[in-house]
Amino acid sequence: MSNQIKPQTLKGFRDFLPKEEVKRQYVVDKIRKIFELYGFDPLETPALEYAQTLLGKYGEESDKLLYLFEDRGGRKIGLRYDQTVPLARVIAQYYYDLPHPFKRYQIQPVWRAENPQKGRFREFLQCDIDTIGVGGIYADTEIITCVMAVMKTLGFKKAKMLINDRSFFKNLMPKFVTAIDKLEKIGTEGVIEELIEKGMDKDQAKRFIISIDKSKPTPLISSISKILRKNGLNENEDFEFSPSLARGLDYYTSTIFELRTSEYKSGSLGGGGRYDNLIMKFFGRKIEAVGFSFGFDRLLEAMQELQLIPQKTTSVFVLVTVFSDYYLNESLDLATKLRTAGINTDIYLNIDLSKQLKYADKKGIPYVVIIGPDEIKKNVVKLKNMKTGEQKETTQEKLIEILRNK
Amino acid sequence: MSNQIKPQTLKGFRDFLPKEEVKRQYVVDKIRKIFELYGFDPLETPALEYAQTLLGKYGEESDKLLYLFEDRGGRKIGLRYDQTVPLARVIAQYYYDLPHPFKRYQIQPVWRAENPQKGRFREFLQCDIDTIGVGGIYADTEIITCVMAVMKTLGFKKAKMLINDRSFFKNLMPKFVTAIDKLEKIGTEGVIEELIEKGMDKDQAKRFIISIDKSKPTPLISSISKILRKNGLNENEDFEFSPSLARGLDYYTSTIFELRTSEYKSGSLGGGGRYDNLIMKFFGRKIEAVGFSFGFDRLLEAMQELQLIPQKTTSVFVLVTVFSDYYLNESLDLATKLRTAGINTDIYLNIDLSKQLKYADKKGIPYVVIIGPDEIKKNVVKLKNMKTGEQKETTQEKLIEILRNK
Repeated sequence: MSNQIKPQTLKGFRDFLPKEEVKRQYVVDKIRKIFELYGFDPLETPALEYAQTLLGKYGEESDKLLYLFEDRGGRKIGLRYDQTVPLARVIAQYYYDLPHPFKRYQIQPVWRAENPQKGRFREFLQCDIDTIGVGGIYADTEIITCVMAVMKTLGFKKAKMLINDRSFFKNLMPKFVTAIDKLEKIGTEGVIEELIEKGMDKDQAKRFIISIDKSKPTPLISSISKILRKNGLNENEDFEFSPSLARGLDYYTSTIFELRTSEYKSGSLGGGGRYDNLIMKFFGRKIEAVGFSFGFDRLLEAMQELQLIPQKTTSVFVLVTVFSDYYLNESLDLATKLRTAGINTDIYLNIDLSKQLKYADKKGIPYVVIIGPDEIKKNVVKLKNMKTGEQKETTQEKLIEILRNK
Repeated sequence: MSNQIKPQTLKGFRDFLPKEEVKRQYVVDKIRKIFELYGFDPLETPALEYAQTLLGKYGEESDKLLYLFEDRGGRKIGLRYDQTVPLARVIAQYYYDLPHPFKRYQIQPVWRAENPQKGRFREFLQCDIDTIGVGGIYADTEIITCVMAVMKTLGFKKAKMLINDRSFFKNLMPKFVTAIDKLEKIGTEGVIEELIEKGMDKDQAKRFIISIDKSKPTPLISSISKILRKNGLNENEDFEFSPSLARGLDYYTSTIFELRTSEYKSGSLGGGGRYDNLIMKFFGRKIEAVGFSFGFDRLLEAMQELQLIPQKTTSVFVLVTVFSDYYLNESLDLATKLRTAGINTDIYLNIDLSKQLKYADKKGIPYVVIIGPDEIKKNVVKLKNMKTGEQKETTQEKLIEILRNK
């Protein structure tokens, strides 16, 4: 066919087929539950924002990664780059309607025109919590405690939050901070090179890198550590002072943190910090703010590596087979009964039994119920465990009990 | 401040603040549960597609509403306009990896550059189910039955599915079908006018409109009705043959349906049908397909009008108050205990009790726990019901039991 369109996704964009999507939903549901347990409420913002809302907030390098367009009305618009700047806009836009402090979570995709490479995508999910309108340190420690509770719930044993005080770098131009943030990725030499390239004097660059390693926790970090210990977290196990931690984004002002786990080597699982001056850009008044963002893809990859996700590939629990058109009604009736009992039930609308079993197998449906003329005559059904191959006869009433208890 | 940016959303785009978002999540969770009960598995596709994937699938009028852009690499791209065309692409792209038949649900936003007006938005959520690779009528009836189960679960008493056979219009050019679809909106005279405007002869237009009203159910519709009755649905109550139903989109081939409820007058709550030729555009081979899409905003609006949504404005269940800095630890400890017990708990990180109660009230938190020096001395806490104002003393252990049972 000459008009056939090649079915393809854009580079850096992904489809999530059911076998992956059921795993993603499993993780999102767990994260959401813990966020709500800690008193964070859900918020959603649009995918598209005015370009001026997004530009000049993240830093020079990030601005280049924004998806910016012009719409049919000639408006300059852009796709959500993170969930923090839209939150800052929301706070300013609805300030007098919102409860204060404002604690919200947000789980939506963001878009960045990065060079696609292994594990880096142009569309990816972020899972954020932020507390707006509270200074001091309790909001910071609550966020860290909540994140560590998420990690525990997800099954991580060695998750650790690295913590630093961004004000240590406050006399440094943002472009230099961005360079320091790459310390782990490109090494001391690499960072010194980049600092020089960006205009820092060579000796100054070297001295600065050395000074970072020798720096002690600021009073802020000491206070945070104290509260975290009170919250049941162990220093150097669950959290740790990390003087070289810089975080790439421009808007951070004091506390910054980054989530790691020694069980998974591919870098950070998320990060955050305090950004007390960002909302001012929309509101003209200083509003204190602190938050954290999970990098969902890495979190998922780490969980898969560590086998922390149930090997479920479908949300279907049982397949009801169809023996022949003549017996279709019996199968439909049974499916209705199972669904009424709250059991996720599929029915294969065809009459070849081997095809039906293959379908169940390919999807990973754990149980198949066979109902044919023999079973109907005896008023029973056959329940097949697709993993073990085990098969047993039972009544329809008992079937529901058995499946409910699995 | 001269640099202050006006905090605003684009026309037709919306923020969902927590008090709305908790309601939206309530409805989405219910829909998702029923979709899974009927054996549909989750799928996600990217927000952005190649423009050629989207163009020429929906019809002339719809093509004009596509959000089309050029990315930095000069690729012509567009935002998801519905979830059916991306699904068709997915089927073609992964055909040999997917189980067949393929039953999936998808709950994601779509974008249409419509003229914003009351109840019509440029970004809105769709909730879809589709069954791919099954002809005949059982897939159609399963979809209708599943949708009616959703409506029942959401609390609708008078939901009705209008059903028609698109093949009745098969000799008509798509532009005429689009006109007929407006019968209810613009009336008989309006449709005749539009048909003439679009090139139909005046007499022919009149005769055609009259013929629609007199038409009888096709054999397809009769068969579907029979199965639906077997599935426990009542003709003329739960579903009804509607000869004037046309559906606006080009890709439908035979069965079409549209969801209404007499309790809510603002039109359709969703629609769908069979589109057996769409996947061919990507795959070069006919793959049968049928699906339904809920218009989430109208569904939500109808539910709000009919008071079918719990008046919850926060996911927080209890607020633990803080008496003073000195007693903060006791409050933090109690919050931890409540969270460990699975109770969504917020803590107000300030020490003015009246402010804390105002905060709970503004958010709509149902319970507040007061813990101060008197309570600590007596080893009790005070539990306040924010709705009734009722207050009672209890121990921390009993508190958890009481809250769990609410």
